[in-house]
Amino acid sequence: MAAHTLESLIELATRALVSAGASESMASATARALVLAEAQGLASHGLSRIPQYAGHLRHGRVNGQAQAHVVASHGAGVLVDADEGLAFPACELAVKEACQRARQYSIGFAGVTRSHHFGVAGLHLDAVGREGLVGFAFSNSPAAMPAWGGSRALFGTNPIAAVFPRGSGDPIVIDLSLSEVARGKLMVAAREGREIPQGWALDKEGRPTTDAKAGLEGMMCPAGGVKGAMLALMVELLCVALTGASFGYEADSFFSNEGNRPHIGHVFLVIDPSALVGKSAYEERVEHLVAAMLADTEVRLPGGRRADLLRRAEAEGINVPESVIESLEA
Amino acid sequence: MAAHTLESLIELATRALVSAGASESMASATARALVLAEAQGLASHGLSRIPQYAGHLRHGRVNGQAQAHVVASHGAGVLVDADEGLAFPACELAVKEACQRARQYSIGFAGVTRSHHFGVAGLHLDAVGREGLVGFAFSNSPAAMPAWGGSRALFGTNPIAAVFPRGSGDPIVIDLSLSEVARGKLMVAAREGREIPQGWALDKEGRPTTDAKAGLEGMMCPAGGVKGAMLALMVELLCVALTGASFGYEADSFFSNEGNRPHIGHVFLVIDPSALVGKSAYEERVEHLVAAMLADTEVRLPGGRRADLLRRAEAEGINVPESVIESLEA
Repeated sequence: MAAHTLESLIELATRALVSAGASESMASATARALVLAEAQGLASHGLSRIPQYAGHLRHGRVNGQAQAHVVASHGAGVLVDADEGLAFPACELAVKEACQRARQYSIGFAGVTRSHHFGVAGLHLDAVGREGLVGFAFSNSPAAMPAWGGSRALFGTNPIAAVFPRGSGDPIVIDLSLSEVARGKLMVAAREGREIPQGWALDKEGRPTTDAKAGLEGMMCPAGGVKGAMLALMVELLCVALTGASFGYEADSFFSNEGNRPHIGHVFLVIDPSALVGKSAYEERVEHLVAAMLADTEVRLPGGRRADLLRRAEAEGINVPESVIESLEA
Repeated sequence: MAAHTLESLIELATRALVSAGASESMASATARALVLAEAQGLASHGLSRIPQYAGHLRHGRVNGQAQAHVVASHGAGVLVDADEGLAFPACELAVKEACQRARQYSIGFAGVTRSHHFGVAGLHLDAVGREGLVGFAFSNSPAAMPAWGGSRALFGTNPIAAVFPRGSGDPIVIDLSLSEVARGKLMVAAREGREIPQGWALDKEGRPTTDAKAGLEGMMCPAGGVKGAMLALMVELLCVALTGASFGYEADSFFSNEGNRPHIGHVFLVIDPSALVGKSAYEERVEHLVAAMLADTEVRLPGGRRADLLRRAEAEGINVPESVIESLEA
């Protein structure tokens, strides 16, 4: 492994996506997001996604010439059509629009429709936090979990993220998906021939299983049982019914080159803390909670580790396996 | 047990709260909400709360003469001061303001500060759903769960609710708190001398326990482990940092007459589905998901049971134990 600068990796990833059929602007927005994920220690949503996205471009699951654009705008709300492209240009546009509306109206709502995998939910909110605004991000995704009591996958693992900026110091970033564990943990267990604990996965008939392979062919369990299932339903409705996108069970898996244009949806909410309670009261309250959390030496602020890793990556570059670099150059 | 009409129970509960020191308007808003909870099968948040609220009124934990009022308003956002009263008048005002703003700006945000126990989160959204609007409700509550990795209670069990109205049929109502189980389950186990499963509670040093009494003196586990803990942090920041309210660890338990005015916070978000994607597209999408869910005979739509029970209560009255009626009359 050798250290690469973020700029060189973004350039390499951009070229790989352009050669697969993405427009220059779609490729560079996507490459930037994936390299930032890699830099923040989130390799599962980093450069390893380039071959997947390139495959979708080549097989027509993504429109490489898409132009994300606003299709409806009313007061504090806006709806962006991703035009069947990769998600990142549409998300950039949606976040920018939501921030402008939050400044003007206290809160801004931006939905994205006809979209694709949006990567790390919290990353879209970096721009929100840098402006001193509070932000939330939601997305649905191809079906991986059943409705509560059901035996058929209907909902995605449907990430929820939030950013709360601080007066000084790294923002608090909350970022989670609604399955009990990530699918990656099943993949590792299957590879190593290990059993998985009860409560991680269901087989394809919806029965609890400790067999990692049966879980991979089946479904993920929602985090916290019925609670995760209800939150996943909430995110499906928020991201689909309010945007006209497709539900998780209408979108084909991202893990194959074959399948439909997934048409999933995302929602971004941005709130201006200075509009109502005022900036100084907001910052006092956040620091009060931070002090209470850090009084316990075992507690860490979520988002801190990502910010540390990003600073180090900006200073020293990132170590990326040669195999990944070669796959980008190929 | 004898059947009582909702009107007679509301009148009885109003009189009990007035005699404990609540204004007529605060008492009637509160009585209405508690009787509706009772009618929807949610007895733990129904008439059994009257003695608790009356105790708080008598011991100065609630300002019985409070006047909920708007303290800040900017575009689509509004901040309501509950004035240290019972929560219900402030929540009614906040929901009304959020709905008006959603109609005008696509989305409305209403925060409530200096408030008290707001009862069943989803009940506040009944008015939102009846207007054909999508709504979300959040509240923090006195500390009952630790931050992830911590050993001291910092966050409340912090309910999240959402309503999605349908073109016809009962709205979908999602309503959950972020602890693995409700505290009531520990109370029942303690009374019966039964052990509780691992993962429900921690003792007061933050160690996992299967002893129900140690759990009651200690803390609740967050639903889904780290995921519930992160969502509880998100709700604390949303309901407190954006409203100037008090965090869970600053508010004394509701289960005692002694203690401070809790000053907790709530947030309501309302979105008008007709503003962006349009009413017919919204309704088509909701019905598509409802059909997919109900194709599995084991799946029920959340909110349906509550609506059925309410209809029956309106037609036939509610059976309430004589002891409850006597405690209200006393």
